[in-house]
Amino acid sequence: MKIVLIGAGNVGWHLGHRLRSCGQDVVQVFSRNLLKAKELGEGIQTAFTDHLDEITTSADLYILAVHDDAIEPVAEKLAASGLQEKLIVHTSGATPMSVFAADFKRFGVFYPLQTFTKSRAANFEIIPICIDASLDSDREMLTQLARKISSKVFQITDQERAVLHVAAVFVNNFTNHLFHVGQSVLEREKISFELLLPLIRETVDKLEDGTPGEMQTGPARRGDEETIQRHLRFLEKYPEYQDLYRTLTDSILQHFTNKT
Amino acid sequence: MKIVLIGAGNVGWHLGHRLRSCGQDVVQVFSRNLLKAKELGEGIQTAFTDHLDEITTSADLYILAVHDDAIEPVAEKLAASGLQEKLIVHTSGATPMSVFAADFKRFGVFYPLQTFTKSRAANFEIIPICIDASLDSDREMLTQLARKISSKVFQITDQERAVLHVAAVFVNNFTNHLFHVGQSVLEREKISFELLLPLIRETVDKLEDGTPGEMQTGPARRGDEETIQRHLRFLEKYPEYQDLYRTLTDSILQHFTNKT
Repeated sequence: MKIVLIGAGNVGWHLGHRLRSCGQDVVQVFSRNLLKAKELGEGIQTAFTDHLDEITTSADLYILAVHDDAIEPVAEKLAASGLQEKLIVHTSGATPMSVFAADFKRFGVFYPLQTFTKSRAANFEIIPICIDASLDSDREMLTQLARKISSKVFQITDQERAVLHVAAVFVNNFTNHLFHVGQSVLEREKISFELLLPLIRETVDKLEDGTPGEMQTGPARRGDEETIQRHLRFLEKYPEYQDLYRTLTDSILQHFTNKT
Repeated sequence: MKIVLIGAGNVGWHLGHRLRSCGQDVVQVFSRNLLKAKELGEGIQTAFTDHLDEITTSADLYILAVHDDAIEPVAEKLAASGLQEKLIVHTSGATPMSVFAADFKRFGVFYPLQTFTKSRAANFEIIPICIDASLDSDREMLTQLARKISSKVFQITDQERAVLHVAAVFVNNFTNHLFHVGQSVLEREKISFELLLPLIRETVDKLEDGTPGEMQTGPARRGDEETIQRHLRFLEKYPEYQDLYRTLTDSILQHFTNKT
């Protein structure tokens, strides 16, 4: 199966390298940024271009690893360039598959559920790949392809993927922001963030032993109003974080009050 | 140095085992629950009791690993039992050292900054131990003891420890609650939480490469109002989480708006 990869950002970069290292036939990569196209193309020893109309029409699968808001306009242009009979997929957690329906008959999703950074190695073997397609035969083909690059392949509908994306915002974006709050308070108080890293790591490692609900600890879990009030008083120096503290504490209190 | 350990909960349990396995002389353990006292005492081959007035007066250091609100009453009783000249410390992140000042002259803190669960092994070698004491000589002695069980020993004042405790609530308690939100939404939508574990792990692993502020991604980071509104609409089914989403999103938006 001949694959064209459109997009050389964080996802495109890692996906291109992984497909290539698993022996898949990536025949061309595109980026609107020529340097990025060249870097990825040369990196995986394949053709590259920064012109959409130079994309080959002889491939079997076109993977769009572009920003969410670029999926629709790029797809339209590709259809207009004679690809409308081809199989096209995107790699987005947030975009319904139907974004392609106006221009294509064979379309789908190939969504690796991970946060990618170019400078960090990605351990694809354990990255969940969420697959969907408009035709059963294409869904099967994409599943086979995904199994070449990961041991965790799931057929996930648009609706399920939308739920996963919201949940991912909570456990990744919001969690990272809380790390930022901790780091930022410590920095302003001249205390090293390093001190918190073993605690952060253990918070995640504990998930091996039970659900996060079972693992909850802390003043809100214990209903320890005295500590909560002392923390809120301290945070008067950091009004932007006082609100966060109150909302998260109320949410934990509410959860454990409802349970008992 | 002869040590008495008072408390056989999560902290006492792990601290007792670690002190013992590092060759320290734990001469007695106490728990008001006789079974817990016995289990820990036998586990580290030392004497145990569930009576405060049976605690030996011949030790050099008394470590209180009890609930925050039990520190003061237990300390009072120990002073009344003839220990008022001894060195006494607690293991709490949230309690000022001065809790001992009314009854003792030699007192301090021996605070392992980690979340402990009896059923999980604790990697003490990398757990930060935060030390403080009323006397310089005791601070030095406690630091030497802490270095026997961990390579990360810090002299931390009451004020710094209070800051650390607030930050720990953000990065541990609140983060774990967000994991719970993700898990709970997926459970109710019949999607496996396993799908999010690699993402959660990478969120933490990324901290090796830069500050969490630099690592922030997601709709709020991008100012992607369309996705934010779609997520909020989805969360109308989960009103208890809609508030959390809005508050955390606003906090991220505010942070990155202020920066630019």
